[in-house]
Amino acid sequence: MTDAATNMRVKLPLICFILEIILIILFGVLVQYDMDTDSKEWHHMNHTDYHNDFYYRYPSFQDVHVMIFIGFGFLMTFLQRYGFSSVGFNFLIASFALQWATLMQGFFHGMHAGKIHIGVESMINADFCTGSVLISFGAVLGKTSPVQLLVMAMFEVTLFAVNEFIVLSVVGAKDAGGSMTIHTFGAYFGLTVTRILYRPNLDKSKHKNSSVYHSDLFAMIGTIYLWMFWPSFNSAITAHGDDQHRTAMNTYYSLAACTISSYAMSALVAHDGKLDMVHIQNAALAGGVAVGTAGEMMLTPFGSMIVGFLAGIIPVLGYKYLSPILEEKLKIQDTCGVHNLHGMPGVLGAIVGAITASLATKDIYGDGLADVFPDVSTGEVTASFQGSRQAISLAVTLGIALLGGLIVGFILKLPVFGAPSDALCFEDSIHWEVPGDEEGHDEQLTAVRTEEDEKLNS
Amino acid sequence: MTDAATNMRVKLPLICFILEIILIILFGVLVQYDMDTDSKEWHHMNHTDYHNDFYYRYPSFQDVHVMIFIGFGFLMTFLQRYGFSSVGFNFLIASFALQWATLMQGFFHGMHAGKIHIGVESMINADFCTGSVLISFGAVLGKTSPVQLLVMAMFEVTLFAVNEFIVLSVVGAKDAGGSMTIHTFGAYFGLTVTRILYRPNLDKSKHKNSSVYHSDLFAMIGTIYLWMFWPSFNSAITAHGDDQHRTAMNTYYSLAACTISSYAMSALVAHDGKLDMVHIQNAALAGGVAVGTAGEMMLTPFGSMIVGFLAGIIPVLGYKYLSPILEEKLKIQDTCGVHNLHGMPGVLGAIVGAITASLATKDIYGDGLADVFPDVSTGEVTASFQGSRQAISLAVTLGIALLGGLIVGFILKLPVFGAPSDALCFEDSIHWEVPGDEEGHDEQLTAVRTEEDEKLNS
Amino acid sequence: MTDAATNMRVKLPLICFILEIILIILFGVLVQYDMDTDSKEWHHMNHTDYHNDFYYRYPSFQDVHVMIFIGFGFLMTFLQRYGFSSVGFNFLIASFALQWATLMQGFFHGMHAGKIHIGVESMINADFCTGSVLISFGAVLGKTSPVQLLVMAMFEVTLFAVNEFIVLSVVGAKDAGGSMTIHTFGAYFGLTVTRILYRPNLDKSKHKNSSVYHSDLFAMIGTIYLWMFWPSFNSAITAHGDDQHRTAMNTYYSLAACTISSYAMSALVAHDGKLDMVHIQNAALAGGVAVGTAGEMMLTPFGSMIVGFLAGIIPVLGYKYLSPILEEKLKIQDTCGVHNLHGMPGVLGAIVGAITASLATKDIYGDGLADVFPDVSTGEVTASFQGSRQAISLAVTLGIALLGGLIVGFILKLPVFGAPSDALCFEDSIHWEVPGDEEGHDEQLTAVRTEEDEKLNS
Repeated sequence: MTDAATNMRVKLPLICFILEIILIILFGVLVQYDMDTDSKEWHHMNHTDYHNDFYYRYPSFQDVHVMIFIGFGFLMTFLQRYGFSSVGFNFLIASFALQWATLMQGFFHGMHAGKIHIGVESMINADFCTGSVLISFGAVLGKTSPVQLLVMAMFEVTLFAVNEFIVLSVVGAKDAGGSMTIHTFGAYFGLTVTRILYRPNLDKSKHKNSSVYHSDLFAMIGTIYLWMFWPSFNSAITAHGDDQHRTAMNTYYSLAACTISSYAMSALVAHDGKLDMVHIQNAALAGGVAVGTAGEMMLTPFGSMIVGFLAGIIPVLGYKYLSPILEEKLKIQDTCGVHNLHGMPGVLGAIVGAITASLATKDIYGDGLADVFPDVSTGEVTASFQGSRQAISLAVTLGIALLGGLIVGFILKLPVFGAPSDALCFEDSIHWEVPGDEEGHDEQLTAVRTEEDEKLNS
Repeated sequence: MTDAATNMRVKLPLICFILEIILIILFGVLVQYDMDTDSKEWHHMNHTDYHNDFYYRYPSFQDVHVMIFIGFGFLMTFLQRYGFSSVGFNFLIASFALQWATLMQGFFHGMHAGKIHIGVESMINADFCTGSVLISFGAVLGKTSPVQLLVMAMFEVTLFAVNEFIVLSVVGAKDAGGSMTIHTFGAYFGLTVTRILYRPNLDKSKHKNSSVYHSDLFAMIGTIYLWMFWPSFNSAITAHGDDQHRTAMNTYYSLAACTISSYAMSALVAHDGKLDMVHIQNAALAGGVAVGTAGEMMLTPFGSMIVGFLAGIIPVLGYKYLSPILEEKLKIQDTCGVHNLHGMPGVLGAIVGAITASLATKDIYGDGLADVFPDVSTGEVTASFQGSRQAISLAVTLGIALLGGLIVGFILKLPVFGAPSDALCFEDSIHWEVPGDEEGHDEQLTAVRTEEDEKLNS
Repeated sequence: MTDAATNMRVKLPLICFILEIILIILFGVLVQYDMDTDSKEWHHMNHTDYHNDFYYRYPSFQDVHVMIFIGFGFLMTFLQRYGFSSVGFNFLIASFALQWATLMQGFFHGMHAGKIHIGVESMINADFCTGSVLISFGAVLGKTSPVQLLVMAMFEVTLFAVNEFIVLSVVGAKDAGGSMTIHTFGAYFGLTVTRILYRPNLDKSKHKNSSVYHSDLFAMIGTIYLWMFWPSFNSAITAHGDDQHRTAMNTYYSLAACTISSYAMSALVAHDGKLDMVHIQNAALAGGVAVGTAGEMMLTPFGSMIVGFLAGIIPVLGYKYLSPILEEKLKIQDTCGVHNLHGMPGVLGAIVGAITASLATKDIYGDGLADVFPDVSTGEVTASFQGSRQAISLAVTLGIALLGGLIVGFILKLPVFGAPSDALCFEDSIHWEVPGDEEGHDEQLTAVRTEEDEKLNS
C-alpha cells in the first residue's frame, strides 16, 4: 500500500530519535529551573509559598494546553478519513515543538548567565509557539508526511522565536494574545508553505477532502474547547491583577458577539438558508484571534464586542468567496481555511491593537499604564508612537512569515521527506494501521479500499 | 427541502444582527469595568495583584463555562440526527444569553451610579443564567427553530433576572448553586413552553427521536463534564474561603452517592436488568442539582450523601413512570426529560435548602454564620424564618416560571418564527447542510433521504 | 439474551444499595469537615480567606478528576462494542471507590480524635486511590460484570490504603505522583486478578476484542486528557510553592519526550512502518507514570526528558513482544495492556525515584530539602538510606499487589457475581439496552445480532 518513498519505517524513527537526543543534550547543557521552580533558589528568597507564580499562571497554562492538544487536534478531525492523523500528528508535532520552543525562546529572551531559566511562564510561551506551528499544520493538513511536519515545526519554531524577539523586544510592541506573533505568523507561514507544495492533481483525493456526520461532531469538540478557553489564552501571560482579569473578560465578550455574527453570516451566504458546519467550526473563533493584541488594553467590553462582531463576519465571507479564488487563482490549497480563521482575523487584531494603543492615556489607564505600556508610562514614547510600533510589528511579522514559508516550503519539497502521493492525501491508512468502520461492514469495506488503493498506486 | 416558513436565510441573520447591535449599543451606554478589571481603579486602590478576584473565581468560572458549552451541548447530542443542532444551537443561544444576562442581571443588582460594573463574578452569573435557558432548551429540543430559541432566550433571561432579584434580594433567600433560580426555574419554564407548543402529530418523526450507539457516547461526554465540574458550579459564587471549599466538597459527595443509586435504580426498573443510557446520562447528575441550595451550608458530607442518594432515585422513576404520563395525559413533550433531571431534583434541592437553613445555629457555624446567613448572624431574622424565606422563594420561582413559560410559549407559536413541521423534527438537515454518514453509503442514503423529504413536504 | 446468572436486575441494585447505605452510615459516624472546610473552625482561626487550601489545590483536583472520569473512561472506549460499559462502569466504580477511599485512607492517616477530617487534599487522595482501581479495571475490561467490579473495588481500595500507609508512613518513602502506590500497585493487582480469572475460550469473543475507526477516536479523547493533565496529577499533593511548580514542569517535559519516542518506536516495530493507535493511546502516557515518584525531586528537565524518553520505548516493545507471551505462556489476558502502560513504567518510576532520592544533598535542595525529604533534612537518615526506603517500598507494593490480587481474584470467581460467558465478553448488549448503529441499518443489524446471541446462548 505504501511505497518506499512514503514508508515511514526508517525515516520517522530516525528523525524522532535524532531530534529528541539533540533536545535532551541541549536541555542538559543550557536549561535550569527558574527561581520559582528551583528548590534552593525559592527557599533562599523570603517568599511565602502562596506567592509562587504557579498559582497565578498554572490554571491558565492548563487551559492553553487543552487548546493546543484537544482544541487544535480535534478541530482538524473534520476530515472523514484523517482523524487519526489530525489528532495524532497534532500530538506528535506539538510535543516536539514545545521542547524546541523552550530552547529557541529561551535563547532569545530567557538567558541568565548563559543558562535558560524555565517555569510556568516559559511553558505557556512554549505552548503559544506550538500553537503557531499547528495553525500552519492546518494549511497543509492531509498533504504532508509526519517527517515533513517535524521538519516544518523545527524551522517554524526558530523563525517564530526570531520574529517574536524582533516584535516584542526590538520594536517594543505588545501582543499578549498573539494576534500577530501567533496567528498572523502561523497563518501566512503555512499558506506560503502550502503554496510552494501546490499539487495540481489534488482532485484525485477530492472525495476524501470532506467531512462525514460524526467527524463534524468530533471537530466541534475542538471548536468548543478553543472557544471556551480563549479568554485564558489571551490573558495567560499578561501582567498580574487587573490585566489578566480584563483580558479574559474582553475576550469572553468578543467571542460571544463573534458567534452571533458567524451564525448570521452562515445562514445568509450558505446553502439556501442552511448553516454550514465549516463556518461554525471556524468563524466563531475569530473573535478570540481579533482581540489577541488589544485584549489586555482598555478596549472595554463594548469595543471587544464590536471587534468580535466584525471578526465573525470575515471568515464566513472568506470561506464562501475568497478561499475558492485563493485555490484556483493563487494555487493556495488551504485545507482548514487558516487564512479565514487566523490570517485575516490576525491582521484585524493587529490593526485593532495599533489603534487602541495609539489612544492610550494616563487618564484612562491610571497607574496601570505602566503594566500595559511601560514605555508610554515612563514618557519614553508617545501613545501614537506605540501605535506605530504595533503597525510596524505587523509588517515585520508578515515579512518573516512569507519569506520563511517560502524557504521552508522548498525544503519540504525534498523527496526524502516522503510526502504522500496525490491520490493518497487526506487518508489515514497511508500512515496508520486503520481498523474497520463497523461490525459487519468491515470485510466488504476493506476489500473495496484495498482494490481502490491498488488502482491508485498502479 | 425547506419551505418558505422554515427557511432561515433571512430570519436568522435578521434577528442575530438586530439583537447583537442592540446588545453592543446597550453595552456601550451602560457597562463598565468593575474595580478588579479597570486599570485605573485597581491601581488606585492599594491592592496587591495577588488579591485580584480573578485568581479566586476564574478557575471556577472556566469549569462552569465548560458545563455550559460542552456539558449541555453534548448531553443533548444523544439524538441520532440532531447532533449539529444540539451542540450548534446550544452554542448560539448560550452566546446570546450570556450577553443579555450581563445586562439584565446588572440592571437588577449590579448598578453603580447608572452603570453596570462587570468582572469575573458577573461572568459566572451570566453563565448561570444561560444554564437556565439551556435547561429549557432541553425540553423543546428538536422541535424549535433557532429563531424561536433566540426569542425564548431573550424573554427567559429577562424573567430569570426578575425572579433572581425577588428571591435573593427581596425575599432574602440563599441559592448559590441555583436549585431554585436555575434548575427549578429553567425546568418548569421549559416544560410550560413545550406544553403550549404541544404537537399532536409528533409521532411522524418518532423514529428520529432516539439515540444510536455513537450518539449516546457523544452524550456521555456532556454528562461526565457536567458531573465532574458540578462542585465548581455550586461553589462558584459563594463566599471565599471555607464556603467555596465546603460547597465543592458537599457536591462531590452528593454526586458520588447519586451515581450509585442511579445505577441501582436503572438496573431495577429498566429492560430485564439492563442499564439504560438515558438514566445514566441524566440521573447521575441530579445529586448536583439537589445540593444547589444547601451545598454552601453545613450540610456535612453525610447529609450531602443522603440528599444525593435520594436525588439519584427520583429521575429514574421519573423517566420510567412519570414521563409517559406527562406526555400522554398532560401533553408535555419533554425531549430530554428536564423534569426528571432539573425539575424534581430542583424542588428537592429547594426543600433541603429550606430545612438546612432553618437548622442553622451560631453553635454550628461559628463566626462563619455571617458568610452564609448574614441576616441570621446579625439577629435580624431567626433561622426558622430564613427557612421560610427559602420555601417562599420556591413558590415564587415556580409561579414566575409557569406564568412566564405560558406567555412565552404563546409568543413562540407565532408562525413567523419558523418552527419545523412535525415530520422534520429531530432532524438536522432542515437547518444544516449535512454531510453523508460513511464513505460508500453516502449516495444511497442521500437518495433515501431526499425521497423521504419530498414525500413529507408534499 | 441474558441468562439468570448474568442478569443484573437484582444483584446490581442490591450491592449498590447495600454499599451506599453502609458508606452513608460510616460517613455519619466517622467523617467531619477539616479546618479549611468547617465554618466554625476556619473562622475561629485568624486566617485570611485567600489562604484557604481550596485555592492552592482545587484546580489540580479538578484536573485529576477529569483524568479519572474522562481520561480513564474514554481511554477504554477503544473496544468496538464496549463503549457504554467502558465509560459507564468506569463512572460507577469510580463513584463508589472515591467514597470508600475517603474512609479507608482517612482511617489510616486522617484520624483526629476518632474522626476523619476531610477537605480538598483528601478528595485528591480519594481520586488517586480510585485511579488505581481503574488501572486494574483496564486489565479485566470486557470480562467482568459490574457486580464483580464493585467487589474488586471494595477490596482493592482497602489494600491500596494499607499499602499506602506502609509505604508512606511506616517505611517513609516519597511517592507524590504514585509511580508505586498507584501505578505499580494497580497494574500488578489487576494483572493477578485477570490471571486468576483466566478464560481459555476467550477466542469466542475475539472478533469484538478490537477497535473500529470511531472508537479509536473516542479513546484518543481519553489519552489526550490523561496526557495534558498528568502534570497536575503528579503535583497535586506535593508541598506548596516550588515543589508543586517543579513537579508539574518535570512531568510536562517527561511527557513531551515520551511522545516522541513512542511514535518512533511504533513506526519502527509496527505494521510495515505504519503507526499503531494502541501504541499512541498508551505509550505516550508512560512518561507521566515514570516521573510519578521523582517528579517532585530536583530531577531537572534534562533528567525528566531522559526518563520520559525511555518510558516511551518500553510500552511499545511491551505491546509488540511481551503481551503475546504474557497471554500465551502466563495466561494473563490483559485487555488494555496495563502492564505496558502502568506496570513496567511504574517500576521504572520507582527505580528512578530511588536513585534520585539517594543523590539528594543540601547543596542541591537548599532549605527546600525539608519539603521533599524531611528526614534527610533533619539528619535522621542519609540520602542513600532514603533511596533504600524507596526501593523497599517498591518491593512491598509488588508483594501486596500480587498477594491481594490473588485472593481477590479467587473471590471474584464466585458464580454469584455474574461474570459474562466467554462468547459475550467485550459486548455492551449483555449489560446495556443498546440502540442501533445507523439509521437504515438498524433492523438488519439487530436481526443479525439477535440471531448470533441466540446461537451463543444455546
